[in-house]
Amino acid sequence: MNSKDPIANFFEPQSIAIFGSFREGNFGGYMMIRNLLDSGYQGKIFPVNPTFKKQVLNYQVFPSVLAITEEIDLAAIMIGAASVPEVLRQCAGQGIKSVVLVADGFAERDEKGLQLQQEIVAIAKESGMRLIGPNTAGIANIIKGFNPCPYYAGYSDFCKGGVSICSQTGMINPQAYPYWDLKYKISKICDLGNKCDVDECDMLEYLANDPDTRVISIYIESVANGRRFAEIVGRVTAKKPVLILKTGRTSEGAKASASHTGSLAVDDDIFEATCRQTGILRLDKFNELFEIPRIFASQPLPKDNRLGIFSFTGGVGVLATDEGSRHGITVGPLTTKTTFELNKIFPGLGKNPVDLGPSVAAVGDIMASYGKILMAIATDENVDMILIIPWASPNDAFSDIYLQAYQQLKESCKKPVATWVYGPLINYNRDLIQKLEEIGFPVFNELETAVKALSMMVAYANTKKQI
Amino acid sequence: MNSKDPIANFFEPQSIAIFGSFREGNFGGYMMIRNLLDSGYQGKIFPVNPTFKKQVLNYQVFPSVLAITEEIDLAAIMIGAASVPEVLRQCAGQGIKSVVLVADGFAERDEKGLQLQQEIVAIAKESGMRLIGPNTAGIANIIKGFNPCPYYAGYSDFCKGGVSICSQTGMINPQAYPYWDLKYKISKICDLGNKCDVDECDMLEYLANDPDTRVISIYIESVANGRRFAEIVGRVTAKKPVLILKTGRTSEGAKASASHTGSLAVDDDIFEATCRQTGILRLDKFNELFEIPRIFASQPLPKDNRLGIFSFTGGVGVLATDEGSRHGITVGPLTTKTTFELNKIFPGLGKNPVDLGPSVAAVGDIMASYGKILMAIATDENVDMILIIPWASPNDAFSDIYLQAYQQLKESCKKPVATWVYGPLINYNRDLIQKLEEIGFPVFNELETAVKALSMMVAYANTKKQI
Repeated sequence: MNSKDPIANFFEPQSIAIFGSFREGNFGGYMMIRNLLDSGYQGKIFPVNPTFKKQVLNYQVFPSVLAITEEIDLAAIMIGAASVPEVLRQCAGQGIKSVVLVADGFAERDEKGLQLQQEIVAIAKESGMRLIGPNTAGIANIIKGFNPCPYYAGYSDFCKGGVSICSQTGMINPQAYPYWDLKYKISKICDLGNKCDVDECDMLEYLANDPDTRVISIYIESVANGRRFAEIVGRVTAKKPVLILKTGRTSEGAKASASHTGSLAVDDDIFEATCRQTGILRLDKFNELFEIPRIFASQPLPKDNRLGIFSFTGGVGVLATDEGSRHGITVGPLTTKTTFELNKIFPGLGKNPVDLGPSVAAVGDIMASYGKILMAIATDENVDMILIIPWASPNDAFSDIYLQAYQQLKESCKKPVATWVYGPLINYNRDLIQKLEEIGFPVFNELETAVKALSMMVAYANTKKQI
Repeated sequence: MNSKDPIANFFEPQSIAIFGSFREGNFGGYMMIRNLLDSGYQGKIFPVNPTFKKQVLNYQVFPSVLAITEEIDLAAIMIGAASVPEVLRQCAGQGIKSVVLVADGFAERDEKGLQLQQEIVAIAKESGMRLIGPNTAGIANIIKGFNPCPYYAGYSDFCKGGVSICSQTGMINPQAYPYWDLKYKISKICDLGNKCDVDECDMLEYLANDPDTRVISIYIESVANGRRFAEIVGRVTAKKPVLILKTGRTSEGAKASASHTGSLAVDDDIFEATCRQTGILRLDKFNELFEIPRIFASQPLPKDNRLGIFSFTGGVGVLATDEGSRHGITVGPLTTKTTFELNKIFPGLGKNPVDLGPSVAAVGDIMASYGKILMAIATDENVDMILIIPWASPNDAFSDIYLQAYQQLKESCKKPVATWVYGPLINYNRDLIQKLEEIGFPVFNELETAVKALSMMVAYANTKKQI
């Protein structure tokens, strides 16, 4: 009988039994083992298949889990739904306490699948086993080099970081999101699938105590137990920010959700009230699930809601001010000292949003002052956080200037910074984005997302103050 | 005296006088001439500078506009604000009727600049001259190969198309947006700057009658004349869709706007009412200014609001349904015939949103049916428009299947289609996006933008029905 914490076993197993096909292919047991090996998994791997007679990637294939004599921390099951109950019973007999059910064809499929799901839940309950899934793309613990993704993702390297993402869709798993290309700094990934057992509450409790997780980002279609959820999430937000994208806002979405994971949506007004009471930061769009947590993982919280904006164009300053205002951010005047100092560099420069545009055309070497201007804004007493909008020039002329300025910012400024990069050549834009992120500053896909991320920092800082 | 239509002269001039510095550099008169030549401008170019003694790019530089004896359709002025009135008077004397004032330092700068702006408006009025600007990055007519961008953009090729973009910021000009990298199909670009004279109304009237413009996308911080605007825009939306992003929703944004272009914002509630009355499609985010008009330029309008969704993952179907419902789109059941047909391919497949995910893992060759499934959804009588969400596989395995299916869609389906692509490798994602767009289907950056674009098609189709 496995005596370790069953939830921890999902993310730090010393041994894993894998049930599925082991033919070479882009999905299934073979691919899961390859991903485990590529990600540097050091634990034991036990493939299980009653008819597969060969070795797979140099591992012996066991005809049944009952043939394995060693302790098994985690089982991953990718077999036809109808065979799952029997295999689960065998797992229970072997003392396995943690099971990822990649298999689908359960509550999300039809009435028969729903019954099958109820049957496996009963088996798990009886034996004290915890289930993730069914209908899940699974889990990963990037920090520990444990990536049992059942799909081919085209990459096996990840950047380790403080964001943990948890969802009711496989859209957060490596085969669906370009973690490596984006150098996304990730800690843990968990697709809860139909969440017949392990749910957002279990994950919140685990991630709250996980020292590698700095911020939790969640996609859910339903809340399994509203009261328990509110109680737990309130405790978690006191420790770490919790960002949630919840669908089923509309009755049509709720209906689609019932068909997707078989889940019943909660009344959205109740969920909204829970968010306000517990300090949940509510997301609106799918991409925000990935974009916004990064600022929490890398930037300090702001003292207050006053934003300093530094851009090359007035229009963008207006857009950012407008967007900020909708989210409770103010873009007020700089101190007299900073205003004076910036106006000396160029007449009218000392206004927030600070617009470098007019001076670039008028003053040949204005870019030599870029770092100085940025530091003046960043250290201004009236500024709690900074939005920077560099223009990636089409000849890469300004790149070194930006990098130097951000480096200085990193060393001497303890305020949160969000960045949006624009420019006429995509490759230069991407190059600058990557370099700024390497220094440690998150760059956002859209101007409005950058502003929203900052506003969520303000909201979370306020939640922390109230505790 | 130039007798052509002064607004048309901005976009189709046979001759242009350029006032500025002609030193080689990334901004100014030299760069404008280079961009004109690179874009294939066939008209006459007259550089004007009293002290520049050399030729510039093989063009003779005139000491004054008065020294030019030929007719001049358009003047572009990039000189210090203080010298502008005198040069404008000379232009008036030469009979020039259209002037782009790239120069800044006017109402957006300070009280003195405001007076200067009033002075040039008076000069223009007296002589019947029309001004674009000041404080503008200028104009371009991509269809005619006329790109007098004053900045170096790193590219000089464009794709010709039906979208015209008009704004109060240079963020739409080539140096700020990757038109070429995105193969963006563009017709005309116009940054109105401080819009001391030519405003959104003039542009709307011109673009409404421009056969090359199929859809008009506008960023404004203010409306110069509310009554005139409402009257004109109502007429234009009867002919072509008009999409508008307007800042100054909040009082802070309005204040920032006053400082940016010296414009006074209108009450946002009044503007919102105007949008509803006239059929303006109101945008919310900067990127939508570019993303959303593409669907109007390439797709037919939907008959009604019923969306068919085809994806690889249930979560995305739920998200899209939820988002659609917020915008008045319904995701209802397919006809019994389609449902039956799809369920034959895989049990449960015949539900809208159609989720291919479960069958991909379960059926080895399901992708061979991709085109058939897509056509079944697209031709379903209960479906007025289609949202397709292809997964760009990490080995490019499905690319040909997608391309074939979209090609078939193009040939035989007269319903609007929006696409969102996701996948684990950015380069494969981008490659697929580009190929789908080459076939003629717009692919959107975010799932929610794709849904919103479709909802705007529905809204515009309703506006047309009411006329």
